[in-house]
Amino acid sequence: MTKPAWERFKSLYWANKELGMGLDISRMNFPESFFMEKAKMIADAVSAMQALEAGEIANPDENRMVGHYWLRAADMAPKAELKSAIVDTFANIKAFAADIRSGKIKGQGGTFQDVLHIGIGGSALGPQFIHDALGKTDKLRLHFVDNTDPDGIAKVIADIPDLSRTLCVVVSKSGGTKETRNGQLLAKKALTDAGVDYTKAFVAVTGVGSALDKTATEEGWLARFPMWDWVGGRTSLWSAVGVLPAALEGVDVDALLAGAAAMDRVTRNANAQENPALLMALMWYIAAAEGKAMVVLPYKDRLMFLSRYLQQLIMESLGKERDLDGKVVNQGLVVYGNKGSTDQHAYVQQLREGPNNFFTLFINSEEDICEGGDKSYGSFEVEDGVTSGDFLLGFLYGTRKALYDNGRQSITMSVPTVSAKSVGAMLALFERAVGFYATFTHINAYHQPGVEAGKKAAGEILKLQARVVAALSSDTKQTVEEIAKKTGSEGEEEVIFAILEHLAANGRAKTEFADNVAERRYSI
Amino acid sequence: MTKPAWERFKSLYWANKELGMGLDISRMNFPESFFMEKAKMIADAVSAMQALEAGEIANPDENRMVGHYWLRAADMAPKAELKSAIVDTFANIKAFAADIRSGKIKGQGGTFQDVLHIGIGGSALGPQFIHDALGKTDKLRLHFVDNTDPDGIAKVIADIPDLSRTLCVVVSKSGGTKETRNGQLLAKKALTDAGVDYTKAFVAVTGVGSALDKTATEEGWLARFPMWDWVGGRTSLWSAVGVLPAALEGVDVDALLAGAAAMDRVTRNANAQENPALLMALMWYIAAAEGKAMVVLPYKDRLMFLSRYLQQLIMESLGKERDLDGKVVNQGLVVYGNKGSTDQHAYVQQLREGPNNFFTLFINSEEDICEGGDKSYGSFEVEDGVTSGDFLLGFLYGTRKALYDNGRQSITMSVPTVSAKSVGAMLALFERAVGFYATFTHINAYHQPGVEAGKKAAGEILKLQARVVAALSSDTKQTVEEIAKKTGSEGEEEVIFAILEHLAANGRAKTEFADNVAERRYSI
Repeated sequence: MTKPAWERFKSLYWANKELGMGLDISRMNFPESFFMEKAKMIADAVSAMQALEAGEIANPDENRMVGHYWLRAADMAPKAELKSAIVDTFANIKAFAADIRSGKIKGQGGTFQDVLHIGIGGSALGPQFIHDALGKTDKLRLHFVDNTDPDGIAKVIADIPDLSRTLCVVVSKSGGTKETRNGQLLAKKALTDAGVDYTKAFVAVTGVGSALDKTATEEGWLARFPMWDWVGGRTSLWSAVGVLPAALEGVDVDALLAGAAAMDRVTRNANAQENPALLMALMWYIAAAEGKAMVVLPYKDRLMFLSRYLQQLIMESLGKERDLDGKVVNQGLVVYGNKGSTDQHAYVQQLREGPNNFFTLFINSEEDICEGGDKSYGSFEVEDGVTSGDFLLGFLYGTRKALYDNGRQSITMSVPTVSAKSVGAMLALFERAVGFYATFTHINAYHQPGVEAGKKAAGEILKLQARVVAALSSDTKQTVEEIAKKTGSEGEEEVIFAILEHLAANGRAKTEFADNVAERRYSI
Repeated sequence: MTKPAWERFKSLYWANKELGMGLDISRMNFPESFFMEKAKMIADAVSAMQALEAGEIANPDENRMVGHYWLRAADMAPKAELKSAIVDTFANIKAFAADIRSGKIKGQGGTFQDVLHIGIGGSALGPQFIHDALGKTDKLRLHFVDNTDPDGIAKVIADIPDLSRTLCVVVSKSGGTKETRNGQLLAKKALTDAGVDYTKAFVAVTGVGSALDKTATEEGWLARFPMWDWVGGRTSLWSAVGVLPAALEGVDVDALLAGAAAMDRVTRNANAQENPALLMALMWYIAAAEGKAMVVLPYKDRLMFLSRYLQQLIMESLGKERDLDGKVVNQGLVVYGNKGSTDQHAYVQQLREGPNNFFTLFINSEEDICEGGDKSYGSFEVEDGVTSGDFLLGFLYGTRKALYDNGRQSITMSVPTVSAKSVGAMLALFERAVGFYATFTHINAYHQPGVEAGKKAAGEILKLQARVVAALSSDTKQTVEEIAKKTGSEGEEEVIFAILEHLAANGRAKTEFADNVAERRYSI
């Protein structure tokens, strides 16, 4: 890079008036000839995306179309029945949400005032991000159960003032996710203990015909909304999964979808320098090849959850062992970060001085106070002529410079404000960048084959637990090795030890401590 | 590793009955001869820690002692006046917190019911982690302002029901942190706008004689508590910074300190295999040399904030360009993660299949329901004989196995429950591991020289903003380059562009959009 910074900036900067967004990749290390050198790779990625949007089977392992783009442009759906499914579902959701908010549909104890959202992964991260970025509390307060931790679930439920005025939204695409099923059962217990008929408060969002769908139908839950196999979990924000809780909270879901649709139009451009999703994907391509992580630093509190959302969207999509030909490639891009300037006081020390194993994605929200916020906090001067928002901008560009002066690269994205429209546009940009990157590296971005092994192993451990419990005796105090032998589980001693300690800690077994774990003894 | 897993586990497993904790490093790749090979390095680290605890200048760049260990064992403080400062401060904090909680000290509108905590980095992360892990809401609800984002600050304050019953705790060791000063001024504005005499609600936690201390003294704030130069920001949890908000919330701060003190006693052991902090530091040493990050996965919702706490403690301490002799070493250990099993549905796909550039720290809390939680959620069976806590354990060990089967290493730490004592012990373990690692790699873990550059650059940007504002005219519409020239700031065009866009977005300048940024024009 011999060009002065400003000249490079001018020639690389992408901006769009309609969206009010900008993207600056000039602080990444690549020659400007790069776009020419990669012209074929870029053209192929654009073609692949066209085929995907037209309804090709873009997820071959699961023999599925990839249709989240249609959710924000139903006219693009390749079949009429898909289009009407999209249109009808959104109409139903908006009507239902309006009825809940207005009190036309009431809870047992009166107008609903809280929503307990039960889901995990793609069924939680979108709603959580939207809630953090755009959530309102004027009518309904959202609470999230996103794990199978009974302590965490109890804590969330204890924070709800009135369970008889609480809507429970249970979200699982497959309908068989154990964490969500467990959360559902514990919420049912809580409502039942409080004397509430849970079926009048429970809503299911799931694939038609799933186990969850069957339960909801048989038990006569308040409502059901569909998920489709052509929408992956990590883009399900655009389906009932994200749109229902957002609509319940009073978020402008049409603007959210319209922002995404607008970005989709922009990112269909085959000219890389006019397409921010191609620019983003190309930067990932360069950085990931050097083993660099992406540190996401939005300088806006409302966007703090973005890094967690992107961890799933990017790492679950791009973290793949094999490419489409079965060749081992171990692709992936690590994502972490919280928010600026806060993180400057946490780990920016290491970013500047430690291993140069990352690039930063700075995100700048131009408007100091977002919609619904108190403008007087934005105009208040903390020093003569200087607002606290000026400090925020100063810290962003100060840190960017301090990192760059030490050879640390960065991208800077700017959005006009944090609104339903800008959030929709931002996420659509990242989604399409994921799609382009997948074509660059010849991988399937739309499946998650590596997740099954852990689930399967967990199932085996629960079976092992049953054998261990059956092998415990009230007469004989047995060691881990004795129990392993008795249950025919030699080789599983470590897990048996963990199971026994867990049982003992929860009053379901007795134990005698010994420093040497092989000498600890367990009974019932 | 030719030994069977269980044999290796038994010979490496560390456990302690008093603390109820365990540490399993058997799934990390190293030969058992490692401890012998590194005997001198280990012995030197133990000696250096002894000297540090005895009051040596362990932070030479800032000519300071490193005394956070004395905060939980005041008898160890090397001078009588240090000991009495510790003892007196804790007594004062506990008395003050008791008076606030009992209503003996009241707010203008009645008994205090909310606490607004204003601080950033080390002045926020400890209180936030303790609040998440142990916080109660029976008497006082905590809220955090930890940034200079006016929108974020407005949102936090809008969530407080009654500002006339809100205690504001302003925390800054140096007393000069701009983000905190800005938060303080905006909180003052909010209380004043609400007709509240803020001086009767404001408390300062800061170094004696700092700018904040002077303001608090001159304005006659409700209370002041001291910070000391021998306690670093990232270990200040053990001083008034962490102890005051914890005591206000009703956390057993004596148990917190006692848990840390108990771990300190254990981790003074010179035998690495009997010292979990040495084991942890040695594993970091092996992994960081291979460029591996540490993915922190506590399987307990209450511990989700731990990774953010550790990002500061570890990355700010160990992320250093130069060693104590000035040699460039670019030390550091990347830390990220949220919680299990939730993250299994986010990025564990990449952990299993993507680049092998990490190891996982699994944390297992044995007791399903922590103190104060509803036990009925723990004993509830979601399947025959199986609780949701059994699923949590199954997912932990299932994921550990799935990762290990693909060559991904891990450490597993177990704690009896999430309590003040166990949290104190856990953090003390990590702190001492940081100290040991620093000696292994011959770096200063107690300063943060890389943070200044960004702050300095930010200050320059605010000065530049003043020049830009002065150069704007209502008659002439000027380009970025014209303004750069007029203000003598050639070479700063990118930042000038960012400043102008920010001013325009907030109604402090006018702009005419052009796709080519060099053609955009600005006026006032």
